[in-house]
Amino acid sequence: MNNDNTSIVILGATGDLTSRKLVPALFSLYRREKLPAEWRIVGYARREWDDAFFRETLRSWAEKAADFDAAAWERFAERLHYVRGDLTSPDDYRSLNAALDRMEAGEANRLYYLAISPEYYEAVIEQLRDAGMANETETYRRIVIEKPFGYDLASAVALNRTLHRAFSEGQVYRIDHYLGKETVQNLLFFRFANAIFEPIWNRNYIDHVQITVAETVDVEHRAGYYDKSGVMRDMFQNHLMQLLSLVALEPPASSDANSLRNEKVKVLRALRPVAITDTVRAQYAGYTATAGIDPASATPTFAAIKLFVDNWRWMDVPFYLRSGKAMAKKVSEIVVQFRRPPHLFFNLPPGKKLHPNILSMCIQPDEGIHLRFQAKVPNSPNEVQPVVMEFHFSSTFEGALPDAYERLLLDAMQGDAALFTREDEIELSWRMIDNVLAGWASPGAPPMLTYAPGTWGPDDAEMLLADDGRRWRIHCGEH
Amino acid sequence: MNNDNTSIVILGATGDLTSRKLVPALFSLYRREKLPAEWRIVGYARREWDDAFFRETLRSWAEKAADFDAAAWERFAERLHYVRGDLTSPDDYRSLNAALDRMEAGEANRLYYLAISPEYYEAVIEQLRDAGMANETETYRRIVIEKPFGYDLASAVALNRTLHRAFSEGQVYRIDHYLGKETVQNLLFFRFANAIFEPIWNRNYIDHVQITVAETVDVEHRAGYYDKSGVMRDMFQNHLMQLLSLVALEPPASSDANSLRNEKVKVLRALRPVAITDTVRAQYAGYTATAGIDPASATPTFAAIKLFVDNWRWMDVPFYLRSGKAMAKKVSEIVVQFRRPPHLFFNLPPGKKLHPNILSMCIQPDEGIHLRFQAKVPNSPNEVQPVVMEFHFSSTFEGALPDAYERLLLDAMQGDAALFTREDEIELSWRMIDNVLAGWASPGAPPMLTYAPGTWGPDDAEMLLADDGRRWRIHCGEH
Repeated sequence: MNNDNTSIVILGATGDLTSRKLVPALFSLYRREKLPAEWRIVGYARREWDDAFFRETLRSWAEKAADFDAAAWERFAERLHYVRGDLTSPDDYRSLNAALDRMEAGEANRLYYLAISPEYYEAVIEQLRDAGMANETETYRRIVIEKPFGYDLASAVALNRTLHRAFSEGQVYRIDHYLGKETVQNLLFFRFANAIFEPIWNRNYIDHVQITVAETVDVEHRAGYYDKSGVMRDMFQNHLMQLLSLVALEPPASSDANSLRNEKVKVLRALRPVAITDTVRAQYAGYTATAGIDPASATPTFAAIKLFVDNWRWMDVPFYLRSGKAMAKKVSEIVVQFRRPPHLFFNLPPGKKLHPNILSMCIQPDEGIHLRFQAKVPNSPNEVQPVVMEFHFSSTFEGALPDAYERLLLDAMQGDAALFTREDEIELSWRMIDNVLAGWASPGAPPMLTYAPGTWGPDDAEMLLADDGRRWRIHCGEH
Repeated sequence: MNNDNTSIVILGATGDLTSRKLVPALFSLYRREKLPAEWRIVGYARREWDDAFFRETLRSWAEKAADFDAAAWERFAERLHYVRGDLTSPDDYRSLNAALDRMEAGEANRLYYLAISPEYYEAVIEQLRDAGMANETETYRRIVIEKPFGYDLASAVALNRTLHRAFSEGQVYRIDHYLGKETVQNLLFFRFANAIFEPIWNRNYIDHVQITVAETVDVEHRAGYYDKSGVMRDMFQNHLMQLLSLVALEPPASSDANSLRNEKVKVLRALRPVAITDTVRAQYAGYTATAGIDPASATPTFAAIKLFVDNWRWMDVPFYLRSGKAMAKKVSEIVVQFRRPPHLFFNLPPGKKLHPNILSMCIQPDEGIHLRFQAKVPNSPNEVQPVVMEFHFSSTFEGALPDAYERLLLDAMQGDAALFTREDEIELSWRMIDNVLAGWASPGAPPMLTYAPGTWGPDDAEMLLADDGRRWRIHCGEH
């Protein structure tokens, strides 16, 4: 499959994702000369657009980039095409296929990108199969599927089954854009391209791990979607489980997709079923009064849970995860808190306690790494104070970090599925979510709490750690 | 011994050390209210000075400080006294003793500071003894001795013997001002007030250690002294051996002087005798043409040696030490280079090698810590690049770091000898130096080389590491 003629087919091309993320990412790949020798982008959707209007619409988004290059855009836009069609009409798929055949003028790879509402996933997959558009011969046929992948374990299993009637697992690229982030990939390089962290990356030295993915925005215009999903489906099932996997996994033997994903799956398989008393759920005040939200909604906009990975490396090390909307700060941060030194050779002043070492991995914003350690306070005999060593991507590498979609689209075209979620991975992740959601629907479940917008959630989230003698920490962006 | 009446007696009070270091340090302690309730500084020397002239001379030095406080100085200077006397005259010591008795007006502690040429050490010690000035009763009698302590092992042993005929070991404070540096003390806190470094601080994870103590100045006005001593006696015997001890020692059980010094002594005892082929010696070009230097001088102004600490923790981990005058940069730095990761989960681009982790402890200038690690290069699939996490004392703590003498004088007054060199420690250190010097005087010794002033020494110093596939590194002050 080294045919360098490639069609990128965006199903649902008139939506936000196409103009905000996909086409800007592809334009950047074009300018970096990362696209194949022959390529085209074919948008497919129901609206009565044509090539010219499609190009014009996309340009108006692309122009917003600080480094927009009009001449490059003109060359790029010549390869943008629009095919009108219904997502569920067999005839329209036959037309799409014929249009693609004409444009390709011979054997060509096809990357199908499902930029559509999840309710259409199964229908589109079946249409692609029935139109004979899923069969690989000399060239590839790959499908990229956005989150949410399923609504629970059962629906995810059903979607996987539908997929596999059309595509083999090797053709499927389930996207979680968090894995395309440089800072998330850097977790693997930080752990395994350095020799000094892995020896202490285990229960002997680590006290606990915290993962915070906090948004300041509320549900905004996404009320309808959000109220059906909530923070567990919207954030935990994908982003938080991915971050947890990367922090906890054993060193992969190679970077090929299955070596890496096997290790992630091992972590998910080792998750201890969540004790429902180790969970906190809440809605921000005003959520149920929002247009589009059921006034009796039991959908959490915030959750905090304590997890354990029952394996040799992590036994009894708590992983505290929290995520929410309308929080105090937009930040994604992984905090690894180490145990305190076993013994101090000097006596601390009365009442003083030695602070533990803390490694903060700042996913966004303020991308970088902070390491907190103790230093001697000058002019004192033996007073110590936590100080911070810092690394910031922005002060070392020029330019803004690339958007996650750029890397993921390139990987999909190059057949590297390492940063995409495998069938078993997604199902194991849903198993954990289902477990929590079922617990919340059962007697004895922790109540739905309320928190003020612009805070870190309800007090119970603090108590989840305080009961263990710990507290939530945010270090990124603090220096 | 909690009598708070204390005399600080500086023998050789008209010299540089008194005005440049001792009195400024004591003045700072005074302003920080660290001096005892009752105190006085009594200068003793041969010159025909009086209290007024002594005060005036010291003030002219003290005034140079940026934060000089004239009012505080006036109050401080009232306690400065000068007693004229010969270093070898029994009568003069009796006069000094009587003068002290008068000023003290009762029981008082005495700290004798030998700010004199080493050739007078034994004479002064004997005079103090003969005048009955060394005997402790209710109050202490302590003696502080500057480096060089001895000229070789035999003379150090002899000096210790003389000392112990007058003072017990508990009364003796052998000063190495490097131990008074905040950054040097911080080595202990870095290692043992943090839980994450000690687990990797051994032969399993550390490839080698480098210690550089480089001066840019040449022998200047010290030609006479320097040509008799050279870099091994002037720098290795004290500063470099101290730094080595602190990097290599096992965690002390407590911070009391003997717990800490026992651990340092264990390191020195474990030193493998230096193979003379693991040494490099050199003079900077022009050294023998300097006034006061023997034109046929065989005194090295630069040396580099490879040492091993034969114990469980350090077996076969090389410690490369180098020091010299007229070097490229004034810097004291400890570099801990870790082993490379045992396995890479990704393939490096052809020809690329993974860089090891490096911890740089910057003793001076640019006081702080640098940790080099690998990060993923953004916009590349798996390219890595060494990046640096940094901590600088100056960006965390206000004000300049205190001078080493301030801490050491305070410790001596408070009876804390932890940062002073013990008898056995100094003798073991001399044993190593004697071993090298004897090797250089024997057949088969490496030749005396020449290096250009303003460089890092002769090529052979580079080869000492290059032959092991390593190279000297300086990271401090580079960012």
